[in-house]
Amino acid sequence: MPDISNRGRNLPASPIRKLVPYANAAKERGIKVYHLNIGQPDIETPERALNAVRNLSDNVIAYSPSQGIDSLREEFARYYQNVGIDIGKDKIYVTTGGSEALLFSMLTITNPGDEVIIPEPFYTNYNGFAKAASVTVNPVKSSIDNDFALPPIREFEDAITSRTKAILICNPNNPTGYLYSKEELEELSDLVKRYNLFLITDEVYREFAYDGREHHSVLNFPGLESHAIMVDSVSKRYSECGIRIGTLVSRNTEVMEGALKLAQSRLSPPYFGQVAAEASISVDQEYFDTVFSEYDQRRKFLINALNDIDGVRSPMPKGAFYSVVELPVDDSERFCQWLLEEFNYKNQTVMLAPASGFYATPGRGKHEVRIAYVLKQENLENAVEVLKKALEAYPGTISVASSESDARSASL
Amino acid sequence: MPDISNRGRNLPASPIRKLVPYANAAKERGIKVYHLNIGQPDIETPERALNAVRNLSDNVIAYSPSQGIDSLREEFARYYQNVGIDIGKDKIYVTTGGSEALLFSMLTITNPGDEVIIPEPFYTNYNGFAKAASVTVNPVKSSIDNDFALPPIREFEDAITSRTKAILICNPNNPTGYLYSKEELEELSDLVKRYNLFLITDEVYREFAYDGREHHSVLNFPGLESHAIMVDSVSKRYSECGIRIGTLVSRNTEVMEGALKLAQSRLSPPYFGQVAAEASISVDQEYFDTVFSEYDQRRKFLINALNDIDGVRSPMPKGAFYSVVELPVDDSERFCQWLLEEFNYKNQTVMLAPASGFYATPGRGKHEVRIAYVLKQENLENAVEVLKKALEAYPGTISVASSESDARSASL
Repeated sequence: MPDISNRGRNLPASPIRKLVPYANAAKERGIKVYHLNIGQPDIETPERALNAVRNLSDNVIAYSPSQGIDSLREEFARYYQNVGIDIGKDKIYVTTGGSEALLFSMLTITNPGDEVIIPEPFYTNYNGFAKAASVTVNPVKSSIDNDFALPPIREFEDAITSRTKAILICNPNNPTGYLYSKEELEELSDLVKRYNLFLITDEVYREFAYDGREHHSVLNFPGLESHAIMVDSVSKRYSECGIRIGTLVSRNTEVMEGALKLAQSRLSPPYFGQVAAEASISVDQEYFDTVFSEYDQRRKFLINALNDIDGVRSPMPKGAFYSVVELPVDDSERFCQWLLEEFNYKNQTVMLAPASGFYATPGRGKHEVRIAYVLKQENLENAVEVLKKALEAYPGTISVASSESDARSASL
Repeated sequence: MPDISNRGRNLPASPIRKLVPYANAAKERGIKVYHLNIGQPDIETPERALNAVRNLSDNVIAYSPSQGIDSLREEFARYYQNVGIDIGKDKIYVTTGGSEALLFSMLTITNPGDEVIIPEPFYTNYNGFAKAASVTVNPVKSSIDNDFALPPIREFEDAITSRTKAILICNPNNPTGYLYSKEELEELSDLVKRYNLFLITDEVYREFAYDGREHHSVLNFPGLESHAIMVDSVSKRYSECGIRIGTLVSRNTEVMEGALKLAQSRLSPPYFGQVAAEASISVDQEYFDTVFSEYDQRRKFLINALNDIDGVRSPMPKGAFYSVVELPVDDSERFCQWLLEEFNYKNQTVMLAPASGFYATPGRGKHEVRIAYVLKQENLENAVEVLKKALEAYPGTISVASSESDARSASL
């Protein structure tokens, strides 16, 4: 049998999805599973997006331009203008989800063996794209103790080597829910300019900034024009994850030339999705206000309810719709599997994402899980009750003190 | 300004698409451009595929499973059964076009610096995926003199090094239109078994085998189970290139495990496209018969008409809907650009793909272009007339003799 490669073998399994077979088995046993593990909102896709696809009159579903349909790129430019980002459509490529924009960014700016610095915990799929590009992720630790704020800039500086090509952040942050302040972004901006690095920011949760906070895009920082690469997606903004439409945005022409060649090699982004995305952008503000307030309520309810459980601790997210939550368990991966394989309360259980897969440093995140608050409040209420019962029943429950001290010793 | 990488810089520009700006400029000057450069059929997408999307009742366009929607994978299994390939749905992943299946294959089985052997000329985007994966393409030359048949197996053997991981072929072949015989495939099969290599075959044009010839899938060769990786797409079969749905099929479980992790990192293939693909598979045989005979007529008309032009030579394609055509020009790249920039006949011109981009060996393909016969016959008639006039007017036209001897000296 021919051998696959180390690259193929070492690709990380998605911690968000690798428990799926256990969840399916639980469902087959008649157990209701509350999915707090994945950012798949139950919010309806805007009617106008669905109608745009339903009313299509095309007879041939042809390739579109590799950079995306022109009118969609114009709509994106208009959208960015509306959120305070002044950028021309020639600097916007349509990609197959934010995922592809990330992959294109990494492949364009790195050679195999290069390094990208990412504050951990980070969106687990960055690991997959890095492995695909044969790039090493160099993590800098953020901590639940200060709500996963940007680590001290000194620690980023210490992590820079001659192979470092970029710093990558997600803002607002998946999985931590942290929203970076203007000051934090200015520090990063100074650093990448000083060391001549790229700053890739994943801004797909831009609109989800709570309590009146403002989101700051790296595209608006002076002097950062050739450094900033912004990754975006319509998936969460309009609850249309399945259409697979994102964007890659940069004023660096070399980056855009490299990305264009990658875009051409895969021919074009999906046509139907582009049609839906274009219609979505002009959705009424009312749709978005409703969505926003729905998430805001879920956030407050779920985070408060979690913090009320003995030994459970979560920051109040400032943005996005995730939180990294500390649980009083010996090993969150074991706990998450146990929830699906061995536990149920009134025929219900909860699916969570073990946080270890969101860290690049082995051993970290052992007492943490990522939760997504993408379900209706009544489902969240049930999910919290189930989780509480589960922590009482789980044989590997540990005391908070030991959990905290573990976490602390791991961070030393 | 931070530097992009050698990888980013050395990505090949698509020879199929890089002349697009010149074509757009010609159109802006009011010139009708016949696109023989790209495999974008003008055949209508099956009505039932379009209706499946138009009649969707989903309210939330959610992520689908990373491997593709279950019912679609079942449909694919049924389709493969119908074309004589006995394969279970667990060995079929839905990908974002055949492009993604190719990228997943390369990333899973290679490390940076590994090599893949491909008979040239080959589908140009293989170059892009190879560069993205930091893999070296090791070409083996096929020649217009024997209709681009499989090169002698000795030449493949000579090209094998310690870094060789796979042989990649496209069958029927894009760009040459060659259909590999059972005997040729058996030779390849023996070779990959002997050297423990993978055999990747791109079979997206499976149905387009003319003159009663039979297509042989590598999935049906005994003893090749762990070697064979098949790449497929619905794009051409149902004229729905824009939906971006393909498959990756293999009985090698390590390959499928690696590909699954890549699939999970990009979350899911496009939902709307999957819906259209699923409906397409059960299209009436009548649709397909009509399409087939249409292509068959275009093929005969175009190839005969081209061979009637002085100094032009093309094999009669046995499959797919392309041919690599020898033209009496000094440099086909220059000629193709000149066609768009400087020439018109009755306000019409032709867009062709210079063949040099389909060769990995520098200097090859200089007197060849790839043409796709994806236009209605009346358009093909006009295109041939325009091409004939262009060859008369082009300042770099050379005699056939010198063209042939060039080609021969290059092949020595």
